[in-house]
Amino acid sequence: MIRPNGLDAFFMPRGIAVIGASGKKGSMGHQVMYHLTQMGFSGGIFPINPGSGEILGLRCYKDINDVESPVDLVVLLLKAELCVAAAGSIARRRKEKGDAGAVVVGAAGFAELATEEGVQRQLALTNMLKEAGVRVIGPNCVGVVDLYNGVNTTFTAPPGTLKGGISIVSQSGAFATAYLRWGKELGLLGVSKFISVGNMADVTIAEMLEYLGQDDSTRSIFIYLEGVADARGLIETAARVTQKKPIVAIKSGRTAMGSKVAQSHTSSIAGDHLLYAGTFEQAGIIQAESVAELFHATRAFDKLPLPKGNRVCVVTVVGGPSIICVDKMYDRGSAQMATLPEPLKEELRKHLSSSATIGKPEGFIDMTASVTDEMHYEVLSLLMKCDDIDGIIFLTTPPGYSDEKSMSDAIIRAYNSVPEHKKKPLLPVLISGSAVNTSRKLLEAAGLPTFEYPDDAAAVMSDMVKYAEYRRRLDREALSDREGM
Amino acid sequence: MIRPNGLDAFFMPRGIAVIGASGKKGSMGHQVMYHLTQMGFSGGIFPINPGSGEILGLRCYKDINDVESPVDLVVLLLKAELCVAAAGSIARRRKEKGDAGAVVVGAAGFAELATEEGVQRQLALTNMLKEAGVRVIGPNCVGVVDLYNGVNTTFTAPPGTLKGGISIVSQSGAFATAYLRWGKELGLLGVSKFISVGNMADVTIAEMLEYLGQDDSTRSIFIYLEGVADARGLIETAARVTQKKPIVAIKSGRTAMGSKVAQSHTSSIAGDHLLYAGTFEQAGIIQAESVAELFHATRAFDKLPLPKGNRVCVVTVVGGPSIICVDKMYDRGSAQMATLPEPLKEELRKHLSSSATIGKPEGFIDMTASVTDEMHYEVLSLLMKCDDIDGIIFLTTPPGYSDEKSMSDAIIRAYNSVPEHKKKPLLPVLISGSAVNTSRKLLEAAGLPTFEYPDDAAAVMSDMVKYAEYRRRLDREALSDREGM
Repeated sequence: MIRPNGLDAFFMPRGIAVIGASGKKGSMGHQVMYHLTQMGFSGGIFPINPGSGEILGLRCYKDINDVESPVDLVVLLLKAELCVAAAGSIARRRKEKGDAGAVVVGAAGFAELATEEGVQRQLALTNMLKEAGVRVIGPNCVGVVDLYNGVNTTFTAPPGTLKGGISIVSQSGAFATAYLRWGKELGLLGVSKFISVGNMADVTIAEMLEYLGQDDSTRSIFIYLEGVADARGLIETAARVTQKKPIVAIKSGRTAMGSKVAQSHTSSIAGDHLLYAGTFEQAGIIQAESVAELFHATRAFDKLPLPKGNRVCVVTVVGGPSIICVDKMYDRGSAQMATLPEPLKEELRKHLSSSATIGKPEGFIDMTASVTDEMHYEVLSLLMKCDDIDGIIFLTTPPGYSDEKSMSDAIIRAYNSVPEHKKKPLLPVLISGSAVNTSRKLLEAAGLPTFEYPDDAAAVMSDMVKYAEYRRRLDREALSDREGM
Repeated sequence: MIRPNGLDAFFMPRGIAVIGASGKKGSMGHQVMYHLTQMGFSGGIFPINPGSGEILGLRCYKDINDVESPVDLVVLLLKAELCVAAAGSIARRRKEKGDAGAVVVGAAGFAELATEEGVQRQLALTNMLKEAGVRVIGPNCVGVVDLYNGVNTTFTAPPGTLKGGISIVSQSGAFATAYLRWGKELGLLGVSKFISVGNMADVTIAEMLEYLGQDDSTRSIFIYLEGVADARGLIETAARVTQKKPIVAIKSGRTAMGSKVAQSHTSSIAGDHLLYAGTFEQAGIIQAESVAELFHATRAFDKLPLPKGNRVCVVTVVGGPSIICVDKMYDRGSAQMATLPEPLKEELRKHLSSSATIGKPEGFIDMTASVTDEMHYEVLSLLMKCDDIDGIIFLTTPPGYSDEKSMSDAIIRAYNSVPEHKKKPLLPVLISGSAVNTSRKLLEAAGLPTFEYPDDAAAVMSDMVKYAEYRRRLDREALSDREGM
């Protein structure tokens, strides 16, 4: 069950010990315990604190070596100065009992200080653990979350995130946590694993990617990257993973000043931006140009099938935003407007009002404001069925006089009017923000990622087309290699 | 009272007649009446429909000439084919009674069809009205809204938008309406006037800008532009307006394909993108690169004072997002990191934890997660008071264990700790989206525009710095002109 690199112990531990657990509300040690006990974790949870008898109803232990049940994952919440001694206890347990194979170290005060003391402390900590065969995530991180296995070692990620196919690997714990929380109210995203890697004293982003590449519940990977020592190794690993699933990355520290800030954050050397951008592209990694794109592309890849080609239909109830959408799509270059077959146009004309624009220019349909729910269904299901269209962007502002629920139902029925293998990405843009949250929640729950802005949807459709083309190129190359043998 | 160009009649009419008003729920003629009667309009509202006795409790007239009270604004909701005849009635009233000086024509089916019939119909309509001295907005538009005077001729913009200093001029009614609705739930924006210009058969964007330039309740102007016949005239007018107040514009139809879509939308010739971009810059117009930037910059200009220089402090609780923020700011080039004076740094050190980063690099402060509400107040008020800082971007994800209300209060107190003339833009970035709506609502209500993404805030701060520099340059030139006299 445990794979060679030992990372399974972080995500499917039999038991979890929390060194530095606390009964004091508002403290980090209490917050972690609180989150962990709310996740439905089926194994044992063991607070370790010599001064407490019980925390949140759980028996407290003086030392990790006192716990008799199996403990695979240890959360180390002590201050930096106390961590090395605690690592000694963990290493002893590992040697004596054979478990305790994974440690998350939260504290700051290590190599990120860029002081001799900090660097030495980090070395002492990790050498002791590594020698005992213990894998370490951190230090200076918020830890890991696994929605499928009820693991949560963070004080920042509250329970309640939906299960899904997104896994997050981040050099910023706060940024990754923000993404989890961003999605919650509207059900925007579902998560598999969350890893705040911190200083990467042992477990690196590359190793984590390799692991997620093999993880069945991960369909889409989000990376926040400041800089790594072994950029080449990271890219090589990523290139293996993108053969199977998409990676969307944002690279910070792109500018000289941003790079200086990154250095003060994780003492990362941000490295040459253009170098990263070029190698990302070669490795099939989608580099997001904005945080919005990172957030949306990751979840669109999780929720939707890849487009089978680059032919996109833009169908709209609202004129202006659709132009902005098409502009953005053509700025990006990967997607093209689909050519609508004549029989499809004729069929569309039957359902739309006489003021509608169909196929002028090619691939563009303006239903105009004279729409009904049924028209939404008829038009979108015709587009879903058409083999000459690989993706659909649908733009509307649910009008004041229409019912959000019945319009959303029509869109969902249309999306589901074709069998699974015929499905194509459908990106609904609801341009009135939180005023149309009812529609947004319904569409998201039905597996359709919604957008507030037309240009965000265009960027994401372009990303999907680009990645799908990358995958098809790999398939063609693999085929011609086999034929050449 | 009525200014020479006659546009006052659209926004401060004594009475409003609605030709095509309807008692049938769900119809456009009913929706317009419903919105109009919900706005607290103090003048008379006169539904015109030969077939009805009363609509929403208001007496219905067979013809506009039957209304004895003053009618300054006429909303024409009939189908295109019926509009010319109705224009005849309006022109007659204008000649006989001297009022009815402004008409909004909603219907499509005119020049935007790019057919001989459509073009001729538009000419017939507007010639008849122009000859009678009646100003026309439209056709093919959703009309006008004035939040201060209770005017709303649209079927799309529901009542309830907050009053504020933003005025919107748009070649897309749907896009403009979406902006109104986008803001409502969280109180993101306050509006003065909304003008959907449609085909601009008479009133142009340029005229509207000139008018808004003189409008005391307009502090910030939003333009959605596809293309205009007289681009030079528009830019010249805009350049006069930006001497007094900011204009933020988005130009659609920038790409060849986008331009084709624009043509099918309003038969606009989108024109050369780079030409527009260059002239925009010369005229001091802020050209938004995304819809998000358009939406946010417009409201930041309304809510906040202009920065007095280009020195920005980025203060954060969250490492990663602040790097993305700084990257974006330096991509844009107009803002720079402020140099923090030594006494300020010393003062900051007293209030922050030892793990905090202060002024590495210059202008950057990482408070780290070890923060209290009081620390927020102390740090932000020190930065507000410092004359070497012209603007502040503050980034956080209100942590799970802190109280959204008390943290927001601390930020608001800090912003208000200096007198009005010492205020500077403070942009709070709350990176957990709708999960922190409580904070967002509080900050917005206190006049601080909040952001979800760090890069959006950086773009907006750059826009504010750029526009403020433009204004200072104009002032210097005016001064040297005077000195040269």
